[in-house]
Parts: sequence; C-alpha cells; structure tokens
Amino acid sequence: MRISELSRRSGVSVTTIKYYLREGLLPAGRQTAATQAEYDEHHLRRLRLVRALTGVRGLSVSATRELLGALTELTGDTHRQLGLVLGSLRLAEEPAAEASASGDVDALVEELGWDVHESAPARTALAETLTSLRSLGVPLDWHTLVPYARLAERTAVLDLDQLGGIEDPLEMAERALLLTVLLEPALLALRRLAQENESARRHAGD
Amino acid sequence: MRISELSRRSGVSVTTIKYYLREGLLPAGRQTAATQAEYDEHHLRRLRLVRALTGVRGLSVSATRELLGALTELTGDTHRQLGLVLGSLRLAEEPAAEASASGDVDALVEELGWDVHESAPARTALAETLTSLRSLGVPLDWHTLVPYARLAERTAVLDLDQLGGIEDPLEMAERALLLTVLLEPALLALRRLAQENESARRHAGD
Repeated sequence: MRISELSRRSGVSVTTIKYYLREGLLPAGRQTAATQAEYDEHHLRRLRLVRALTGVRGLSVSATRELLGALTELTGDTHRQLGLVLGSLRLAEEPAAEASASGDVDALVEELGWDVHESAPARTALAETLTSLRSLGVPLDWHTLVPYARLAERTAVLDLDQLGGIEDPLEMAERALLLTVLLEPALLALRRLAQENESARRHAGD
Repeated sequence: MRISELSRRSGVSVTTIKYYLREGLLPAGRQTAATQAEYDEHHLRRLRLVRALTGVRGLSVSATRELLGALTELTGDTHRQLGLVLGSLRLAEEPAAEASASGDVDALVEELGWDVHESAPARTALAETLTSLRSLGVPLDWHTLVPYARLAERTAVLDLDQLGGIEDPLEMAERALLLTVLLEPALLALRRLAQENESARRHAGD
C-alpha cells in the first residue's frame, strides 16, 4: 500500500509516519519509484506498536527505537525472543537505583521456582520497589509477595493464551509487547475496583 | 516529638517538612512555644504517605493535597472511606478522555457482580484503556477481561488482608493508599517475570 493508505488505516498522519521513518522507528518501505514506496501489513502492525509505546506507555523515541531494535535482531528462538521483549521493557525510564533488595528478589524467584534471566529488568524493578518501601518505613517481607506472584502466574497464562494461533515469531513478539503494555492500566484499574468491592463486602455490616 | 526528631525518623529534611506544612500536606503540630511545635506518630505516618504519593507515584503537590483532604474529611464510615480513597486515585493525571467504552465497563461490572461506585475513577481509567486499544486497531472484547478480573478479586483479598488489625479508620485508609500505590510497580514486575517464566515453560521443547 502507499503511505496515504497506511496513514488512513493506522490513523497516524503522513507527517508523523515520515517522522517515524526518519527516526528509524518504522522500517523503510519497498522503493517503487524515486518518490514512492510500498508498505505492507508489517508496517501497519509496527505503527500500532510505536503508537502504543510512545503514546500509551510514554516511552521516548530513543527508548522505543532500542526496544524495537531488540525485536528485530532476534528471530527463530521464540522463547528467547518473547522473554527478552517482555523482560526488557523497563517499568520506568529512570536510571536503575542501587537496589539493595536484590537478594530478596533472588530468594523470591528461587522460592517460586521461576525460570527467568539473571539480568531481567523486572527483577531490578522489583528490587527497587522493595528498597523504596523500606526507605519509606514500610518494609515488606518478600514472603508477602509469594501469593501475589502465584496470581501473577495465572495472569501470565491468560496473557500467553492470547498469543495462541500466531505463527510468525516476530508478529507474536510484537503482539505480546502490545498486550503487556496496553493491559497494564486495565489490570491496575481492575485491582482498584476489586478492592472497592472487597471493602464493601467486608464492611457491609458496619 | 520535635521537628528535628520527626526529620530523623522519617528521613525527610526539616526544610522539606516545613514546605509540606506550608503547602498543607502535613497538619500543623501542637504549638508548645512561639517557635516550637510537637509532632506525633500521625505526622510520621502522614509524611511517609506524602513521600510515597509525590515521590514514587509522582503526584503533584495539589493532587496530593486533594487526595489527603478527602482522607481527612471522612471518618467513621470505614467502607466509604476506603472505597473513596482507593477509587479516587486516578491512574494518570491527564484529564479524562471521552470514554466511548464506558458501556463495556458497565457490562463488565454487571457481569462480575461488583459493588462499586458509578463514578469510581477506575471505571473511567478502564474505559479509556479499552478506547485506546480500539483506536490502536487491537479492540479487546470486555469478556476477555472477566478472567483477569477474577484474579484481581483474589489480589484485592490479599490487599485487604494486609490491613487487618488496624483499628483507626484514618490509619487504615492511609495504609491502604500506601500499599495500593507502592505495590503497583511490584505487581507489574511480577507479571513480567511470570510471563517470561510461562513463555519458557511453553517453549521448552522449541
């Protein structure tokens, strides 16, 4: 398809698409004439992903480029690709604080028996949270997180089930990233509503 | 305790404490002399909460003041207080977009049988997420969220269990807010790690 159709189908303006092309967030189309290029479904999917990462998630252009670069370099090894993509999305863009609680996270992962990389950024994010709780005077024993982690396991099963039927590893990794990013605010909102409901249930007799 | 001890025990500088006092984020101490005031455990708890909301959560001073104001106005009705506090913390500070998916959220809440306010901001946040997924070309049927919501119910039970044993409704509401805010990044990190683990499990034979 031409860039105008790509714009129409994605809802992203031609100007913005050209900006993404220049910044390397979107691979170049197939050149068909000096001033014309052809785009395909892959470009459409990639555009959605870029919008989700920069818009919904608020990632910078350079962080988005880095993440998409990791996607493109890996092919063939589905697990490695998925693990890398999902694990590499830092929870915040701040530089990692010294995480004195990393030993706690190691103990938690060991207890859970989870097969996750030593260097997964989510480990660091978790350690940072435990450290910040400690510095706020509300230390949290890592054992407290075990039942939360068991529920996270079941959430992950639902997440991965949604990727069933996608054969292409790159498309699967893109979709996994999109769902992970976009479902986060929904899951946090569900937790809030569930808390309100549970609170109502417990205090119905007050 | 004097302001110097409050500073030492909270890890917040005297200058910052004075700033919070001026901005109304922290109630004034009990005046004991022209230039001296006494603070108590309630001030210490409130300081931790302010640091969590402004630091970890990144709320503005005015948003924090508004939230704390809601806390202070309500007393006695534990459910109402908890529900209001947990539900009123918007997931983002952006103004609410027109949420065309609010009918979907109503249907979801109805299906779940949840007792939540019509005007809970988390409803809006959820509708916004569904709307943004739709605009990104990856519409999500609200039925897909039902199993996620059932897991959120169990998460909320864990959350509320942690408040057991706190008698004072204000202290309970403060603690609920702190745990809700501070556990969010931990829960998202656990989901990432669980996804990596589940992906490894499924593709072990690749």
